[in-house]
Amino acid sequence: MTLLNEDAKGVYVIAVTPFAEDGALDLTSVDRMVDFYEEAGATGLTILGQLGEAPKLTAEESCVLTERVIKRLDGRLPVVVGVSAPGLAPMRELAETVMGMGAAGVMVAPPWTLKTDDQIFSYYAGVGEALGETPFVLQDYPLTTNVAIAPKVIERIVREVPTCVMLKHEDWPGLAKISVLRAASDKGEVRRISILCGNGGLFLPEEMGRGADGAMTGFCYPEMMVGVVGAYQAGNVERAHDIFNAYLPLARYEQQQGIGLACRKYVLAKRGVIATGNLRKPGVALTPADIADIERLLARQARRLEEIGA
Amino acid sequence: MTLLNEDAKGVYVIAVTPFAEDGALDLTSVDRMVDFYEEAGATGLTILGQLGEAPKLTAEESCVLTERVIKRLDGRLPVVVGVSAPGLAPMRELAETVMGMGAAGVMVAPPWTLKTDDQIFSYYAGVGEALGETPFVLQDYPLTTNVAIAPKVIERIVREVPTCVMLKHEDWPGLAKISVLRAASDKGEVRRISILCGNGGLFLPEEMGRGADGAMTGFCYPEMMVGVVGAYQAGNVERAHDIFNAYLPLARYEQQQGIGLACRKYVLAKRGVIATGNLRKPGVALTPADIADIERLLARQARRLEEIGA
Amino acid sequence: MTLLNEDAKGVYVIAVTPFAEDGALDLTSVDRMVDFYEEAGATGLTILGQLGEAPKLTAEESCVLTERVIKRLDGRLPVVVGVSAPGLAPMRELAETVMGMGAAGVMVAPPWTLKTDDQIFSYYAGVGEALGETPFVLQDYPLTTNVAIAPKVIERIVREVPTCVMLKHEDWPGLAKISVLRAASDKGEVRRISILCGNGGLFLPEEMGRGADGAMTGFCYPEMMVGVVGAYQAGNVERAHDIFNAYLPLARYEQQQGIGLACRKYVLAKRGVIATGNLRKPGVALTPADIADIERLLARQARRLEEIGA
Amino acid sequence: MTLLNEDAKGVYVIAVTPFAEDGALDLTSVDRMVDFYEEAGATGLTILGQLGEAPKLTAEESCVLTERVIKRLDGRLPVVVGVSAPGLAPMRELAETVMGMGAAGVMVAPPWTLKTDDQIFSYYAGVGEALGETPFVLQDYPLTTNVAIAPKVIERIVREVPTCVMLKHEDWPGLAKISVLRAASDKGEVRRISILCGNGGLFLPEEMGRGADGAMTGFCYPEMMVGVVGAYQAGNVERAHDIFNAYLPLARYEQQQGIGLACRKYVLAKRGVIATGNLRKPGVALTPADIADIERLLARQARRLEEIGA
Repeated sequence: MTLLNEDAKGVYVIAVTPFAEDGALDLTSVDRMVDFYEEAGATGLTILGQLGEAPKLTAEESCVLTERVIKRLDGRLPVVVGVSAPGLAPMRELAETVMGMGAAGVMVAPPWTLKTDDQIFSYYAGVGEALGETPFVLQDYPLTTNVAIAPKVIERIVREVPTCVMLKHEDWPGLAKISVLRAASDKGEVRRISILCGNGGLFLPEEMGRGADGAMTGFCYPEMMVGVVGAYQAGNVERAHDIFNAYLPLARYEQQQGIGLACRKYVLAKRGVIATGNLRKPGVALTPADIADIERLLARQARRLEEIGA
Repeated sequence: MTLLNEDAKGVYVIAVTPFAEDGALDLTSVDRMVDFYEEAGATGLTILGQLGEAPKLTAEESCVLTERVIKRLDGRLPVVVGVSAPGLAPMRELAETVMGMGAAGVMVAPPWTLKTDDQIFSYYAGVGEALGETPFVLQDYPLTTNVAIAPKVIERIVREVPTCVMLKHEDWPGLAKISVLRAASDKGEVRRISILCGNGGLFLPEEMGRGADGAMTGFCYPEMMVGVVGAYQAGNVERAHDIFNAYLPLARYEQQQGIGLACRKYVLAKRGVIATGNLRKPGVALTPADIADIERLLARQARRLEEIGA
Repeated sequence: MTLLNEDAKGVYVIAVTPFAEDGALDLTSVDRMVDFYEEAGATGLTILGQLGEAPKLTAEESCVLTERVIKRLDGRLPVVVGVSAPGLAPMRELAETVMGMGAAGVMVAPPWTLKTDDQIFSYYAGVGEALGETPFVLQDYPLTTNVAIAPKVIERIVREVPTCVMLKHEDWPGLAKISVLRAASDKGEVRRISILCGNGGLFLPEEMGRGADGAMTGFCYPEMMVGVVGAYQAGNVERAHDIFNAYLPLARYEQQQGIGLACRKYVLAKRGVIATGNLRKPGVALTPADIADIERLLARQARRLEEIGA
Repeated sequence: MTLLNEDAKGVYVIAVTPFAEDGALDLTSVDRMVDFYEEAGATGLTILGQLGEAPKLTAEESCVLTERVIKRLDGRLPVVVGVSAPGLAPMRELAETVMGMGAAGVMVAPPWTLKTDDQIFSYYAGVGEALGETPFVLQDYPLTTNVAIAPKVIERIVREVPTCVMLKHEDWPGLAKISVLRAASDKGEVRRISILCGNGGLFLPEEMGRGADGAMTGFCYPEMMVGVVGAYQAGNVERAHDIFNAYLPLARYEQQQGIGLACRKYVLAKRGVIATGNLRKPGVALTPADIADIERLLARQARRLEEIGA
């Protein structure tokens, strides 16, 4: 498998983890989901993110899922695997396992105990050392990790840790961060790494405008991310906004913590991608009122997409 | 002045604090802003919120601002004043001052040190006792206060603290919270208080659908909140969504922490409401890239509003 | 192996994780450490706590360590194993593994995302369900987990989750919590569970006075905990304080976050219990100034112990 | 009044705020307390700290208290006044008021929203600018403020903000921080500022060993801090530890959050310094079990002091 590098662009979809009614991992749905994302135009997949349901998997299930996804893609698309862990030894253990299976790279979020600039840098220096040759994605998601990483700290990591090849950017607000990082690499002060954006795609057009290379997030219509990134790359900024705006009301709804993931799985199930929208325990279930909200948003979204010819 | 009570509905706009180029409080802009909000259809105003620039005011400036706003409105609209403080004595001192000036009620956010259900309840019981007859708004904004208030705790406060007449709701996600509170008051288990929603109005149509009475937030186009709430109250749900969606891209942009307030003031200045969009120090300034983002959103919003005849 | 139950008392020492100079797990030191703790009068051992170096172990190393400790004790003392994990499935997986090896029970700290009383209760209800028959220890350590558990929440867990048999108490301050829990069980309102205290033993005499059953902590002189608990159980309160006070200056020094663990391992290495005091990366190293501090404290402690004939 | 400067040393006692039975500020006790601290050997007093009961005072009460303390001391000892506030304008307003009354300097803790190194530095640069000529103390207390300030950030503040003349050090652990700061000033890399230590004095002998200039904390026996600092300054390290150890059991008890302050006031009341040990609402009250704990500690402390001839 080709390794992840600084040139990555497009849309790396954060995959959901499909479960059967009884809570077991649903591998048939995994296959269908992988096909769906590929057909939707994804340029990569990301699995075992810490913010979805991956932490609910046993170590064995995590391996089974990873192997299944990689096998299904058969090298056509790269797979990034989340390996965040409180210690470096278990992180390296998991990274070695998944890289051995054919993953393209791994993703590491900071533990919530980090505070000062130097603590954050030292942590990622240690990560780089522990992972050896394996390229990794720095996940910058302060809303969830509680760790604020200043642009200068990212620059220092990029400078001193050559295997850090991508920033999964989901600071909020983070547009200025992208601008600062791109200005630094444009001036040749620091290596230019790939920046893919998260936050459910809620700022994707503006992020592309600041120099992002695409998206790494999990909205239930990957068509949105693919469409926005494609239009932007084709120089059609207004079209990118048209597409984005059509999906925005639903994307916003999906961005609610907890309930948002249930919404995403509900829509994917409704679209026939996964068998059921169930979350594994502990997890919230949608109420009838939630479903009514979502159905209205879907109906309005369909109409709006037709109006703009998308 | 009529006191705030459980029947409050509509749109209480969270006012910005206008400053002159030199950082002084700009009272001429205050007057213009008050007029603007009133003409836009606000049913009330809220000032000295802890999350804007009120904490940057001296005690004297806070009084000058409050007096100016109340005098300008001359009793036509109620004014709610934020009085959150670490101690009950200074909170009562400020509350007495502003109620003496003619405020309709005060608003209290929890100090970030509160953790357990009982700690939160006890705090608000103490608030109620300290404030005496003064009606108050419970501000529930966990993203900023770091305090998560369970629906049952709100119910207990409503039950035992009769002067708590309104919930400023900005939990995220919080739709279920509104549903739970409304189910309880519908069943007669608890007094029905006013629920006005914050979060920049980003979930306003759905919040109205769950039984909210309106909005208390500060988006730079109060027309959005007034339009959505009005359409909902008139039973025209789809129209509410049409209006909401037209403003959503900008509302989303304004919801970025820090930069969002600068965006709001920039637009208000551009609309002629306040003299300048400056934040008082310490505060961020918009970059040219930010302004380009905002201008594009404004241009697209204008076109879309025309398309939907709003 | 006998399972852990509500009658547990005495001193469960939190074992350190010994590493060789090269960072490998040092199993010879593990054996010696187990013997040392047993000879010092421990009534149980606790391993794989989340707050020491257990998170630095790979999954395989965790199993090797657990097996080694249990085999060495050969049933003479019960072993509690920390199994805290973000998801219930991996927690159950680890619990089943260690119980299969002969552990007496497991210990579970709350994930830092829990906030309200109901969230905390629901989490532990889910833990109880996931663990089946396996008895578990509720670890209440807000300083590190950031989760504050009110006494009434603990009582509700004790009432509704019969496999919760012990509280590892390290709230700070927490003396009132012990008093409240003991008053409730004395009145027969709730099952009486074992309460063993942490916090490096810094409040052990007062905790015993409130009704604790002993200590579960890791100070480098387990003689302190054994002595204090023994004197208390023998009704000799002043003697308990005499012993405690002799060790307090060092115990206080060891309670510093980060550096404290390095201090503990330094002393254990100096006492010949483990081969080296190294922390595995990432971990702090003692400076010469730290070592000078510790040596002075050790010298003074030796003199004081002689003075009081302990 | 002489202004606070980098040469400050000795013991600045953090004064409690005495209230009468009915919750009113007790000015007679204020006078007696000031005399008591002076007679005990304090070299300065600190009032209106954010971590005690100062936030419970109204603005007017704060002024009354400050004036009373300064008047009572009549220039014999310098007074530092806490002026932490969320905004710079109200901070400056309070600072100007108290400096006008004759305070020697002010103290500023960081707001809990600060995260990155640059954010912290910028905040204090803004503080320095806002305060003008007024010398200020940087209060570094991460356990309560949730802000971790790296030594290099303190050094940068010292370098670029000349009115920062003192560090109130209560990081935990923080011995290494003192060592780093002193090494930097010894090498002439940075101005040498005064370092006075907090944390209830729990690490005072070791802090003196690292180069601290004394203590700024509020233990109910200021004799402890005065004795330890004095013995250290006289070169008698073992004597410093003897004195420290005699008071340590009680100092440790007083370090419990919340209940600790009630303990401190209880003892001060018992010693006849203040009229009652009441905390103003909201505040905890000691239980009979707490009082029994404290009385035993006092009795044992008296015996031990006699034994060591202190």
